[in-house]
Amino acid sequence: MTSSTPTTPSIVLSHANYGKSAVRLVKVTRDGDRHDLRDLNVDVMLDGDFSASYVDGDNRAMLATDTMRNTIYALAKDDPIESIEAFGMRLAQHFLKTGPTVTGVQIRIVEYPWNRIAVNGQEHEHAFTRGAGERVAVISVDAAGMTVQAGIDNLLILKTTNSGWEDFYREQYTTLPDARDRILATVLTADWTYTSAHADFERLWSSVRDQILVTFTDHYSPSVQNTLFRMGKAVLESHPDVQKIHFSLPNKHHLLFDLARFGMENDNQIFHVTNDPFGLIEGTVERSQ
Amino acid sequence: MTSSTPTTPSIVLSHANYGKSAVRLVKVTRDGDRHDLRDLNVDVMLDGDFSASYVDGDNRAMLATDTMRNTIYALAKDDPIESIEAFGMRLAQHFLKTGPTVTGVQIRIVEYPWNRIAVNGQEHEHAFTRGAGERVAVISVDAAGMTVQAGIDNLLILKTTNSGWEDFYREQYTTLPDARDRILATVLTADWTYTSAHADFERLWSSVRDQILVTFTDHYSPSVQNTLFRMGKAVLESHPDVQKIHFSLPNKHHLLFDLARFGMENDNQIFHVTNDPFGLIEGTVERSQ
Amino acid sequence: MTSSTPTTPSIVLSHANYGKSAVRLVKVTRDGDRHDLRDLNVDVMLDGDFSASYVDGDNRAMLATDTMRNTIYALAKDDPIESIEAFGMRLAQHFLKTGPTVTGVQIRIVEYPWNRIAVNGQEHEHAFTRGAGERVAVISVDAAGMTVQAGIDNLLILKTTNSGWEDFYREQYTTLPDARDRILATVLTADWTYTSAHADFERLWSSVRDQILVTFTDHYSPSVQNTLFRMGKAVLESHPDVQKIHFSLPNKHHLLFDLARFGMENDNQIFHVTNDPFGLIEGTVERSQ
Amino acid sequence: MTSSTPTTPSIVLSHANYGKSAVRLVKVTRDGDRHDLRDLNVDVMLDGDFSASYVDGDNRAMLATDTMRNTIYALAKDDPIESIEAFGMRLAQHFLKTGPTVTGVQIRIVEYPWNRIAVNGQEHEHAFTRGAGERVAVISVDAAGMTVQAGIDNLLILKTTNSGWEDFYREQYTTLPDARDRILATVLTADWTYTSAHADFERLWSSVRDQILVTFTDHYSPSVQNTLFRMGKAVLESHPDVQKIHFSLPNKHHLLFDLARFGMENDNQIFHVTNDPFGLIEGTVERSQ
Repeated sequence: MTSSTPTTPSIVLSHANYGKSAVRLVKVTRDGDRHDLRDLNVDVMLDGDFSASYVDGDNRAMLATDTMRNTIYALAKDDPIESIEAFGMRLAQHFLKTGPTVTGVQIRIVEYPWNRIAVNGQEHEHAFTRGAGERVAVISVDAAGMTVQAGIDNLLILKTTNSGWEDFYREQYTTLPDARDRILATVLTADWTYTSAHADFERLWSSVRDQILVTFTDHYSPSVQNTLFRMGKAVLESHPDVQKIHFSLPNKHHLLFDLARFGMENDNQIFHVTNDPFGLIEGTVERSQ
Repeated sequence: MTSSTPTTPSIVLSHANYGKSAVRLVKVTRDGDRHDLRDLNVDVMLDGDFSASYVDGDNRAMLATDTMRNTIYALAKDDPIESIEAFGMRLAQHFLKTGPTVTGVQIRIVEYPWNRIAVNGQEHEHAFTRGAGERVAVISVDAAGMTVQAGIDNLLILKTTNSGWEDFYREQYTTLPDARDRILATVLTADWTYTSAHADFERLWSSVRDQILVTFTDHYSPSVQNTLFRMGKAVLESHPDVQKIHFSLPNKHHLLFDLARFGMENDNQIFHVTNDPFGLIEGTVERSQ
Repeated sequence: MTSSTPTTPSIVLSHANYGKSAVRLVKVTRDGDRHDLRDLNVDVMLDGDFSASYVDGDNRAMLATDTMRNTIYALAKDDPIESIEAFGMRLAQHFLKTGPTVTGVQIRIVEYPWNRIAVNGQEHEHAFTRGAGERVAVISVDAAGMTVQAGIDNLLILKTTNSGWEDFYREQYTTLPDARDRILATVLTADWTYTSAHADFERLWSSVRDQILVTFTDHYSPSVQNTLFRMGKAVLESHPDVQKIHFSLPNKHHLLFDLARFGMENDNQIFHVTNDPFGLIEGTVERSQ
Repeated sequence: MTSSTPTTPSIVLSHANYGKSAVRLVKVTRDGDRHDLRDLNVDVMLDGDFSASYVDGDNRAMLATDTMRNTIYALAKDDPIESIEAFGMRLAQHFLKTGPTVTGVQIRIVEYPWNRIAVNGQEHEHAFTRGAGERVAVISVDAAGMTVQAGIDNLLILKTTNSGWEDFYREQYTTLPDARDRILATVLTADWTYTSAHADFERLWSSVRDQILVTFTDHYSPSVQNTLFRMGKAVLESHPDVQKIHFSLPNKHHLLFDLARFGMENDNQIFHVTNDPFGLIEGTVERSQ
């Protein structure tokens, strides 16, 4: 947050931030013949007093976004990147110290998963196929401290039964019938906040993801809303390191196709999938203070 | 905002919102043989006390997102849609009244521009080509009142000279040379807030857009940052109806291609365009209180 | 086309081609203070006898795709680029001569349109906004000669009336009612072949595009199919330099929203737009031999 | 192919085809509590004599694309869909018989993979996550007979070593240095043609894919070109049911980041990934006649 900078009596720059986005970094580490791979997309965003540049055109205190890019690659060289959270914290602290007028830094890292190719039942040492979904870390640091968030992006999940939408509010424009058995499908986006900057982030991320998936399967879903809450509650109950969790769940509608017109029954077998419009269900579940 | 709802002693639903996205609506109005067209993408998002549904699986107070979709089409029928801001306000007020436990509504409308096809120098009455860029309105309403925002999305702008990036901060990872004459290109995203819900939104939107474009052309740009501020300041100075304006400006880098390797000069003629990484410059300019 | 290369008695490389795609080039030319801009995406694809590389791993006759990229930028420096067709022909001839075993070259160039920003009713000398749609040229050269194609991509066109779909074939799975007045909307993709490599390609391209748009408006359309043919016939009749023209026209369905459920009439006013599925109508119109 | 239809003395419709694209179909089959899922995107394209419609605006022999959509859902109801190839063949034959003037049909089916969620080490009966990559089948039928093709789309593969690009052709615009150890990464698109319409397509598809992946890992790659040929040859040698196979392999360049500027070594550890431009390597390997 830039402190308000008077320019004319009444018009000010009330907020300014800038950074570099989409820095695509692959790091290969070798343990003998066995290679490991980190495939990352890094965004840096700086907050601070940048009014000299914005208001007066004076760049002398401005870190170039090209420098941010160089820095990410240079720091990656000697960083063990034991997790994207740990790497993100080191990047955040570096930029907080480096930018002359920087007061806050946000680092967002997306990691693309790669699975080893199986050859004769053995995992290959250096050949991979890309998996589905993405892992995300968001690190925010300012004078008040550091926040570590983790998340999941673009993971499609679906159940073919044990889901419905019934007894909802009806008024003049309501035409949707009750559904007692429908397909539930969504593109999972979740992000959660850790209680501490010192944790086993690798293990935790997998464990939170697994809990979300297991809870997705374990109940009759009366609504995306209720399934969202159940997934969040289960994560918090089983993970003391998680302070809160937020979900954004587009409802990827799978609608029964009307076959009765052709004298055929459709007993929850044939669905058409629509991309738009879609319901969007969001919510945050957290520990009360 | 859902009031905190205890479920176990310590885990609560701290926020919940839901709605319908990507409702694609075209309305044709006829003035004799001359047709007008509104091509819209509408998102509805409701805030309120939805804990019965999220926490307990009780949908009785829940407006279905399918009902939201129906409502948008039904209200569009008799609405003059004299502007997307006006239509958005009426939608927002409708959903605030309709949802049994709704306390806040956000409507976001994107309008796609269509230009009349010219035939023998005359504008055709009912045939169109789609133009570039999009117009946006975001209406937020709750017990505290109504906010009306407008904006521009996906408008690419570029100037081939009168732009540079010099005398910036240099440290150990800085390699970028000074540039006194470069291409400046961005995908313009701007959103601004009106001081009132009663204004000539059609005229204002065009006027704000024109002012942004004119200011983009009228100065040597020492940085995207400074051009951002100048565009914001010019809009506020010439539009008393605008309270504040925010920009998000990705720097679409156009880099001089190194032709010296082939014994050729490159006097700011030949550029390669890169999609990633990109600088991202943001800021808000507003009237001080 | 690689001549069949025996490797085992029975398995051969029957065709091979390779090249560089998505070379993004901007050229700025200055006429005093007035700047002109060519914003291009260039693809190169080479045909030839590449079996030494494919079959035997011997790269000695292989032009690197990185060299192709360099060449595009280097040739652009001194080329006037009076049209993308002319630039494409020179690129094609260059690669045909340069690659040691190259027997054919295809160059595809997409040009993105930029319009000058208006300031006080005057076109600005060096500031632009990007327009809609793209212009395309495809140049193919081999021992048999050169072919020059031009085209339009991604131009959305729509008419709000004077279009229908009636009296079509009906059988057991047909449920669609006749439509006498509907919205016709498509994303225009057209490509046409010139009779000669010597023509005024700038003027021709605009003239063909204008003819397509005018014909789109000038008749009652009983089908996308018939409108396709009419547009092609009109282009050929008015442009002796065009040998044939091909269209690919997705039918962007705009469906009447059912308002009768709410006691409302929908007199061709309120439409919902669907992205999928879509009809796809293609055809080629040409001069008979 | 429409037979040439004279309209004026000299302008004819030389080819016409139309169909329905992006028909998104999910079929759920239940074996007790265990559910199976087919998630498909189906395209239909018809060839035939459609000149009455295109040239004369007479639709009486035209199957509506909406009817095609209905048909896909209706036929899916009773079809076992034991493979997408088998379902595609039945769709193709249906449309060949049904369209009054249809002489050829092409059906393209993309299948999205879904993996069962693991709960306590057990595969869940009805809950899934979407996997990476897609399976494709293309069925073509006309009076001359039926062709069955299968394929892979959008499968990202990468190896961190055992790949290079050396001793290639050098000329005036060549600047790329030799690489003896680089990352090789591509988005695999492959399509192959079966020798017969009667085969175990489920088993074959998995087996071909596995062979491609294994061959990708098993050699030092002197070029994408040579790896392409090796993968094709290995598939043909191990699969007598495959007549030919075609690959389209974009080279997703992973470039060593220059750390020497910062006094650091980069021993094949730190790479930046670029999206454009990209090399594109294609080829067909087949059994000689």
